[in-house]
Amino acid sequence: MAKTALVISAHSADFVWRCAGAIALHAEKGYEVTVVCLSYGERGESAKLWKLPDMTLDKVKSSRRAEAEKAAQALGVHDIQFFDLGDYPLEVDREAKYRLVDVIRKVQPDFMLSHSKWDPYNTDHMYATQVALEARMIAQAWGHNPGEKVLGAPQLYLFEPHQTEQMEWKPDVFLDVSPVWDKKWAAIQAMEGQEHLWHYYANVAENRGNHFMRNSGGQSGGRKSTHAEGFQSVFPRTVDEL
Amino acid sequence: MAKTALVISAHSADFVWRCAGAIALHAEKGYEVTVVCLSYGERGESAKLWKLPDMTLDKVKSSRRAEAEKAAQALGVHDIQFFDLGDYPLEVDREAKYRLVDVIRKVQPDFMLSHSKWDPYNTDHMYATQVALEARMIAQAWGHNPGEKVLGAPQLYLFEPHQTEQMEWKPDVFLDVSPVWDKKWAAIQAMEGQEHLWHYYANVAENRGNHFMRNSGGQSGGRKSTHAEGFQSVFPRTVDEL
Amino acid sequence: MAKTALVISAHSADFVWRCAGAIALHAEKGYEVTVVCLSYGERGESAKLWKLPDMTLDKVKSSRRAEAEKAAQALGVHDIQFFDLGDYPLEVDREAKYRLVDVIRKVQPDFMLSHSKWDPYNTDHMYATQVALEARMIAQAWGHNPGEKVLGAPQLYLFEPHQTEQMEWKPDVFLDVSPVWDKKWAAIQAMEGQEHLWHYYANVAENRGNHFMRNSGGQSGGRKSTHAEGFQSVFPRTVDEL
Amino acid sequence: MAKTALVISAHSADFVWRCAGAIALHAEKGYEVTVVCLSYGERGESAKLWKLPDMTLDKVKSSRRAEAEKAAQALGVHDIQFFDLGDYPLEVDREAKYRLVDVIRKVQPDFMLSHSKWDPYNTDHMYATQVALEARMIAQAWGHNPGEKVLGAPQLYLFEPHQTEQMEWKPDVFLDVSPVWDKKWAAIQAMEGQEHLWHYYANVAENRGNHFMRNSGGQSGGRKSTHAEGFQSVFPRTVDEL
Amino acid sequence: MAKTALVISAHSADFVWRCAGAIALHAEKGYEVTVVCLSYGERGESAKLWKLPDMTLDKVKSSRRAEAEKAAQALGVHDIQFFDLGDYPLEVDREAKYRLVDVIRKVQPDFMLSHSKWDPYNTDHMYATQVALEARMIAQAWGHNPGEKVLGAPQLYLFEPHQTEQMEWKPDVFLDVSPVWDKKWAAIQAMEGQEHLWHYYANVAENRGNHFMRNSGGQSGGRKSTHAEGFQSVFPRTVDEL
Amino acid sequence: MAKTALVISAHSADFVWRCAGAIALHAEKGYEVTVVCLSYGERGESAKLWKLPDMTLDKVKSSRRAEAEKAAQALGVHDIQFFDLGDYPLEVDREAKYRLVDVIRKVQPDFMLSHSKWDPYNTDHMYATQVALEARMIAQAWGHNPGEKVLGAPQLYLFEPHQTEQMEWKPDVFLDVSPVWDKKWAAIQAMEGQEHLWHYYANVAENRGNHFMRNSGGQSGGRKSTHAEGFQSVFPRTVDEL
Repeated sequence: MAKTALVISAHSADFVWRCAGAIALHAEKGYEVTVVCLSYGERGESAKLWKLPDMTLDKVKSSRRAEAEKAAQALGVHDIQFFDLGDYPLEVDREAKYRLVDVIRKVQPDFMLSHSKWDPYNTDHMYATQVALEARMIAQAWGHNPGEKVLGAPQLYLFEPHQTEQMEWKPDVFLDVSPVWDKKWAAIQAMEGQEHLWHYYANVAENRGNHFMRNSGGQSGGRKSTHAEGFQSVFPRTVDEL
Repeated sequence: MAKTALVISAHSADFVWRCAGAIALHAEKGYEVTVVCLSYGERGESAKLWKLPDMTLDKVKSSRRAEAEKAAQALGVHDIQFFDLGDYPLEVDREAKYRLVDVIRKVQPDFMLSHSKWDPYNTDHMYATQVALEARMIAQAWGHNPGEKVLGAPQLYLFEPHQTEQMEWKPDVFLDVSPVWDKKWAAIQAMEGQEHLWHYYANVAENRGNHFMRNSGGQSGGRKSTHAEGFQSVFPRTVDEL
Repeated sequence: MAKTALVISAHSADFVWRCAGAIALHAEKGYEVTVVCLSYGERGESAKLWKLPDMTLDKVKSSRRAEAEKAAQALGVHDIQFFDLGDYPLEVDREAKYRLVDVIRKVQPDFMLSHSKWDPYNTDHMYATQVALEARMIAQAWGHNPGEKVLGAPQLYLFEPHQTEQMEWKPDVFLDVSPVWDKKWAAIQAMEGQEHLWHYYANVAENRGNHFMRNSGGQSGGRKSTHAEGFQSVFPRTVDEL
Repeated sequence: MAKTALVISAHSADFVWRCAGAIALHAEKGYEVTVVCLSYGERGESAKLWKLPDMTLDKVKSSRRAEAEKAAQALGVHDIQFFDLGDYPLEVDREAKYRLVDVIRKVQPDFMLSHSKWDPYNTDHMYATQVALEARMIAQAWGHNPGEKVLGAPQLYLFEPHQTEQMEWKPDVFLDVSPVWDKKWAAIQAMEGQEHLWHYYANVAENRGNHFMRNSGGQSGGRKSTHAEGFQSVFPRTVDEL
Repeated sequence: MAKTALVISAHSADFVWRCAGAIALHAEKGYEVTVVCLSYGERGESAKLWKLPDMTLDKVKSSRRAEAEKAAQALGVHDIQFFDLGDYPLEVDREAKYRLVDVIRKVQPDFMLSHSKWDPYNTDHMYATQVALEARMIAQAWGHNPGEKVLGAPQLYLFEPHQTEQMEWKPDVFLDVSPVWDKKWAAIQAMEGQEHLWHYYANVAENRGNHFMRNSGGQSGGRKSTHAEGFQSVFPRTVDEL
Repeated sequence: MAKTALVISAHSADFVWRCAGAIALHAEKGYEVTVVCLSYGERGESAKLWKLPDMTLDKVKSSRRAEAEKAAQALGVHDIQFFDLGDYPLEVDREAKYRLVDVIRKVQPDFMLSHSKWDPYNTDHMYATQVALEARMIAQAWGHNPGEKVLGAPQLYLFEPHQTEQMEWKPDVFLDVSPVWDKKWAAIQAMEGQEHLWHYYANVAENRGNHFMRNSGGQSGGRKSTHAEGFQSVFPRTVDEL
């Protein structure tokens, strides 16, 4: 059976900037990667669209959805789901939580990805992580929809927020995404509404490549990595070798 | 060439309670594990000996050394070195730091192990970690003994202190040491002067086994582990798969 | 008038693992200890029961309630109340909060006990503490049910979570529960559905006994304690002697 | 056009103790300062009133409102709004959030002021700040009431809580309010229901004046300040000179 | 035998501002309180003296010593010792550490008092605490001056620094010093060289009295305290009742 | 009289990567900026040079010095001083501290710049900041070289380390260095021995420019900045307007 991963993205573009490399890399390795976009980011992260004439909420959503689907395709995403729960603020009621639990149980992810724990600029982001932890817990409950396969204990990786230091986010793992950078770059370019962020996240990826090299071999050695992504683990790992 | 690991232990018994399982396990895997005991713990961690009649500092050191060597043998330690720098307080001058750097460069460890960053009960412990970081840095310097092979970027794992919460120590990796528990138990029993800690650290190992299981598979699943050890990483990892 | 204490337990078994010693000890001292179980833990903490054939939510609740009552009896609990608010996730609406405030005001506890502030494994736990703080505040309000006796400023002790370091929980007080260990052990054994935790929490109690001894008298002295429990205080103490 | 500031106060007296100096000082400089009182603090912060005979919720609210208006007048507040959302606990539903967003957008504040991020004594306080961050985010969304002027990125200053250390509040800016201390003192005296706090906050202002002097010129120099207020910034500043 | 306490003060006046109340109160209770002044604060905390004509280091030391002795007498200090190690920077070599250990062992304090762990304004302060922890550890070592009575595990209380929030100091215990305030005030007035701090620390004591009341009984109750002092505990307590 | 600033750089290149923009910008504004290089980074940060044949410590120092002087000239540095104290590890004895104090007093800086408080990769860096704080304190002492002008209370800004998150560094101020980017770029290119860092720090400057814009005007507004630098303040500011 294929390995699997699950990305929980507050808005429909977050998964691109923050973990598109991880998605593409694992897809190439045979993982089936599912992305859940809790909202389209239609109100709060679509400024460029709203400046166009005759714009409506539905048009924004459609545009954002199309962009996200195009990016997902570029990355080899197995399944992308849009929960359309609204943004700014995002609100996830019990029904929506259970819907998310259904996805988690169906996917049975080997690992999960979501936002940083703190984000004073964007409360939707930290709320999404709170929901991710809650849904992970429910999915582990034997008494929730008894008979279904319960969830194990997948790692929850927190992907890189904008302005990492302000979010009190500290990466403990760097993933070399050099082999799939072209795919991430394609996905980034699919985000036509946020062109102002393209170059920024290319810089981020390059500099995380430097961190990959630095941490794999010291100041003057290490393995070359042109592009990397950083992640913060919520839970400890279990290993047989250090 | 064999893989290698290096343990930097403030006092001669610390490596037993805190990472004997990791030592034995990696030794079985073919690692050459070197242990550096910065002191014998002769003044501060040998209360039982000092209560005996006619005790002297030299006798305490000899006894502590014998115990440590016996433990090292039980664990399959490749090399154990006693720097005899004194304890309570431990003081490492520049010459001793360079001696430690020599060991680090000779060993070229794949990973290093030392104490927690904070320990208000035992300032020797946190000082040893400060020295470990400093020596690691010096060993990376191309201008230190030019011509020698410089150090890469080995992880520094902080092993489990006594009273973890007071030391602000948070494990991010659990190592299953079930297969070598008998060796760790033998090493523990070699510490005749600190018998009051035997049962305590057996309990710790069992409960860390529970944490291993919990983190490898949730509340009701996970891989069985009778004994485990926890470690806190100082540096981020570099990986090709999450 | 009798002194009183109040335990706010997210699920019906939490009070046993985490503070049964404190309950039994204070009951012996004449305190009237009230336990509020916000839920039975029927969905998320009853895996063993759900693996039995023909299990239903009501059967699980009944079984969990019976276990909790048996434990309460073993500990000398004055009053145990089951709010039956559901678990995984626990949700406490305004009406339920006011019900909790009613209990607090009636009990007028000298101190309160609840969960750690952070728990990424179990969001019910940290939510229960948030609710405890909120209810404590409401109970202090002169304008809430005017005429009732308002609450003073009881300490809120956070009892020991599973995997303390991951919960960022740091005990600042150790309570010697050696005299009542047999009662705690009886209460633990009443938790038939979670037998996998019995030995774990016996180990915890023994090792906290070591911490009690260590902190009452240094590395080689201190008062003997076979079993202890640790707690983290939320509020500062007020004293007439250090 | 006048510069503007917005204070978001959980209860109707908070703005007085915590930032009356900032309000009066900026009012004198020509800022239009708007104060939003989310509640009157009628249930939880009006003990003195509730001890009077024949007291009702409406009477308490009226009295609290009158006090707040008197204080606002003394300080030169441009506009004070009472959302009357209830206290102990304060609850802000989506409609009320949008009402707050309307105010924010209308005011277009150069900076905002609210409570500390953590307050175990008073969950209303930290909740107000959470709401302030959420409302700030919504006010920045181009898709929220399209056509309105969206909010820029005003600083959110957290004003001084009671028992600062327990609230994990750390001021990074001290404002000299010596020139307007008489106005703050008048506003404080308008809080007739909480006379027990008058002297306390006069002491606070004097000691913050010491901190102002200390930080503006070292142990034996610095600019004299008889009274000051401290604030913690949530966001980084952007400057052209350090 | 009398109970005992030990204060370790970086400069000769620190013990007055920060714990004179605790000293006087415990002296009245029969404790023998010893104060060790590691330096006179002759270089860094004697600005007023240095502004006088013809001042010399020896004159400053004499003046500072006289003030400290006068304060000690007012407080009922059992023994005050001046180590005269120099200040700005304070440096404590091994010999001086052993001298401090000698005092600790002779006093066998029931509790110790020293500075906050962090102080970017005054590195002498945090260094003194580091030394206090180190000396406490050495005093516990059976191999240090074998035959002497080793130290148990006294609490180390960190007394209140100037600008508490900047020092990351958080009090967890408030001591009511109302009964001895007149003695503390007399001791404060003995510090003639630092008159600019008198009023400041009177305000601190009054406001800590408010915190005492608040934490002993809620917003509208609690035990009246006109003056109090706050302390942060380094080690957990061991108790038989919560 | 000219305003002044002082940079304390552990190794001779640190001031370039981390605050060359601030230096050039303030120099253009008329500040006299002094740079103190505590070491040349000759052992630990000159890998490229050590790989050349017939290299000696003196040759490395000369080369590093020449690079630093060239960079200083490009930036308009007023004075650059090389303390030549050695690196990996850097050690600053009392005499060297006093030499640094002499510089501080002579410069009387309006603000100071140094490294992050924590750096597990490079203990020289955090040690330099510890020394900077200690020297700042000594420079404020009236009894240190009585008669000299004592230091006021200049801010100490911590400039950006490599791998900010690992260093627990959080910027609270962003400085727009767009107008002097060409100068910083020239200074960077003077660091011929560390060409592998050029592109990295160009990316950093661009992305900090994004943060400048973001924090000066929200997600879709703000003031354009092509390049910026971030700094963390150690001390609170004192202001007359928020």
